[in-house]
Amino acid sequence: MQQENIQAVVVNIGDELLMGQVVNTNAAVIAETLNKMGICVKEILTIGDNKAEILTHLKHLWSQYHIVFITGGLGTTNDDITKSCICEFFNRKLVENKAILEHIEYLRNARGLVLSDSVRTQALLPEGCIALDNIHGLAPGMWIEEQNKILVSTPGVPSELTGMLDDICHRIKRKFQPWHKIDKHFKLMGISESALSDLLQDFEHQLPDYIKLAYLPKMGIVNLRLSGYHADGNLLENEMNKQADRLKAEIKDYVFAVEDTDLALLVGNLLKEKGCTVGTAESCTGGAIAHQLTSFAGSSAYFKGAVVAYSNEIKHNVLQVDEQLLEQKGAVSQEVVCQMASHVLQLLDVDYAIAVSGIAGPGGGTPQKPVGTVWIAVADKNGCQAQCFRFGTKRQMVVERTVQTALCMLYMHVLKQ
Amino acid sequence: MQQENIQAVVVNIGDELLMGQVVNTNAAVIAETLNKMGICVKEILTIGDNKAEILTHLKHLWSQYHIVFITGGLGTTNDDITKSCICEFFNRKLVENKAILEHIEYLRNARGLVLSDSVRTQALLPEGCIALDNIHGLAPGMWIEEQNKILVSTPGVPSELTGMLDDICHRIKRKFQPWHKIDKHFKLMGISESALSDLLQDFEHQLPDYIKLAYLPKMGIVNLRLSGYHADGNLLENEMNKQADRLKAEIKDYVFAVEDTDLALLVGNLLKEKGCTVGTAESCTGGAIAHQLTSFAGSSAYFKGAVVAYSNEIKHNVLQVDEQLLEQKGAVSQEVVCQMASHVLQLLDVDYAIAVSGIAGPGGGTPQKPVGTVWIAVADKNGCQAQCFRFGTKRQMVVERTVQTALCMLYMHVLKQ
Repeated sequence: MQQENIQAVVVNIGDELLMGQVVNTNAAVIAETLNKMGICVKEILTIGDNKAEILTHLKHLWSQYHIVFITGGLGTTNDDITKSCICEFFNRKLVENKAILEHIEYLRNARGLVLSDSVRTQALLPEGCIALDNIHGLAPGMWIEEQNKILVSTPGVPSELTGMLDDICHRIKRKFQPWHKIDKHFKLMGISESALSDLLQDFEHQLPDYIKLAYLPKMGIVNLRLSGYHADGNLLENEMNKQADRLKAEIKDYVFAVEDTDLALLVGNLLKEKGCTVGTAESCTGGAIAHQLTSFAGSSAYFKGAVVAYSNEIKHNVLQVDEQLLEQKGAVSQEVVCQMASHVLQLLDVDYAIAVSGIAGPGGGTPQKPVGTVWIAVADKNGCQAQCFRFGTKRQMVVERTVQTALCMLYMHVLKQ
Repeated sequence: MQQENIQAVVVNIGDELLMGQVVNTNAAVIAETLNKMGICVKEILTIGDNKAEILTHLKHLWSQYHIVFITGGLGTTNDDITKSCICEFFNRKLVENKAILEHIEYLRNARGLVLSDSVRTQALLPEGCIALDNIHGLAPGMWIEEQNKILVSTPGVPSELTGMLDDICHRIKRKFQPWHKIDKHFKLMGISESALSDLLQDFEHQLPDYIKLAYLPKMGIVNLRLSGYHADGNLLENEMNKQADRLKAEIKDYVFAVEDTDLALLVGNLLKEKGCTVGTAESCTGGAIAHQLTSFAGSSAYFKGAVVAYSNEIKHNVLQVDEQLLEQKGAVSQEVVCQMASHVLQLLDVDYAIAVSGIAGPGGGTPQKPVGTVWIAVADKNGCQAQCFRFGTKRQMVVERTVQTALCMLYMHVLKQ
């Protein structure tokens, strides 16, 4: 088989997406999965639960792409019409799939539920289509091949979709041999996107047309992605290595990681490697740092616990911050955040402690300490280092930037030990 | 002005979206905002940083919709090409906007930075377009009117987009008088989506064609949305009230809220109303419940703090759970979760306490307590109630369902007091 430039479109069906009631996380999951396989996602389209519109788009997209990947509209309610659209488009009848019906009966029995007529319709599939097992729900996915093209349809419930992705990837790999794809990632701190763009002007101009550089700034960190896409795997690998070395030389003063890894996971891996533990004392972040640090499997190896001290009473009673200090300096101060860090270090008996205290807003600001003012401290047995930041006026952004910056401070601190 | 059926398309430009590196939250924010104004969003399209493709889509979409709302591609880097595409599409030149240039100079000065050539290009705008102020960044938004249609273009950075939305809404309201839109929301527990669909079959069949019912299941809760869209505002309001009453009669055994409000905010509002406080003791959720409860402005009125006891050592040392109990019953047990809740109630001096202890996975499961087993307790001065759940095998889902269920248990408990 020869390498092909395989192109795909992702179609997400659902009025709830067009109304903005649900954020479309499925598209990103599918796009990431397909891209990693070397399949180029050219469009992501969200449309409503409307038969005429679905059919119009389907006709147009089917003529343009190798893979049409559809999510949503496979439930048992009246607004779930994907299946009937697919039947009409391919001119196929619905037939009952025995294996799927048995699976549905088994699931219903296991939960002590009867098999209603509407649930039974889940076992009806377009003639000749391959059913994709759904381990997290009732509605099977569908795989249809025609004219050397693929239509995949999965439920819109994120867990049900992700449960089918491995199966779908294997089927795609058996069918197509896509172009080679290499991505290299760099995480930078201490430089803005625009300054970085100025710095990298010459580098960008000399890149061959099959290698692209993308800037992804996020909460004070700039993520750079160098992506190559080519039919010739060896050529691509050599050129990517050469370009990555050139890039690294340019950004060496700012780069702190060369992985596309979540910062919290990066911190976690570093702590695990060093055999160290961490705990947090959080005010304005309300537990968000602890939540980030425990988002990954195996986090109990390095994360022991946290005290969320939203009220001053708890800062005093649980974290033993001086009442006088709280009154004189205020909760958002270097002295208080250092006491929080030092005391939580002892209380939780950890190697490193993060403490944050700030004004997330919208209320609580003063001329001296406006909304967005945040003190962050990192403590270990040798002492405590604290820094003050201004993170803007939007509550959610203040919290997010505090989390990212605190994790970054901890990462740099542990790295130096 | 007569009411018009105004239709819009949202176009999000950016390779990072097509590669799945970034979840498209902008689309949901814009869609929700436009829908609330009675503007019908018919498509959401994500495409890459490719001039030919942007122009092809723009041509097609401009002929179909009243409003084309574009985000992304307005930065200073080489992959930011939205502005040049707009110029080419409307056949306009780029001209320097003095007010924008002054604003950019002011922002740069305030941060002690020089005005580089690439930053200066941000002040270049298509001739005759209205600049939309960007209070969170450098790149202005753009508003172009032609042939009684609107093209809006904003940066892709979420905070910069949301900072412009009020201005954009006011301009749209001055330009169009859209159809009337009414949404009514219902939150249900204790019934599955498919059982609900069976229950509401007759109700759905008698709905007029301008009123739709949508099912939005989320982590054990089913959200129902009844949406009406019509040129005649009075007719719509009367019919919507009649249908909402009919619906309420059908679902009265399951409905626990009639607002489209986040569960954490619902809990917060109820606590505020009753003048009560809450705190949490969290193991497997790692602070996620505290984080949810503090996500909203004013949460310090009811949320005091939390102890995240990820390790057994902290369950014992900070939450005073019996060591013997931990050993005999295990951390994931009714006895331990009740001790956690009761002790945190005292430690934080709150009216209500939530405690959770479970196995988020992927490791740590046993035949008796498989991954996904979670104990949740709610305590107040009268005692403690605990329940055991099985939340599946996916780590992230176990955490999310635990958070939602814990908040739901607290809500029902406080409601009954």
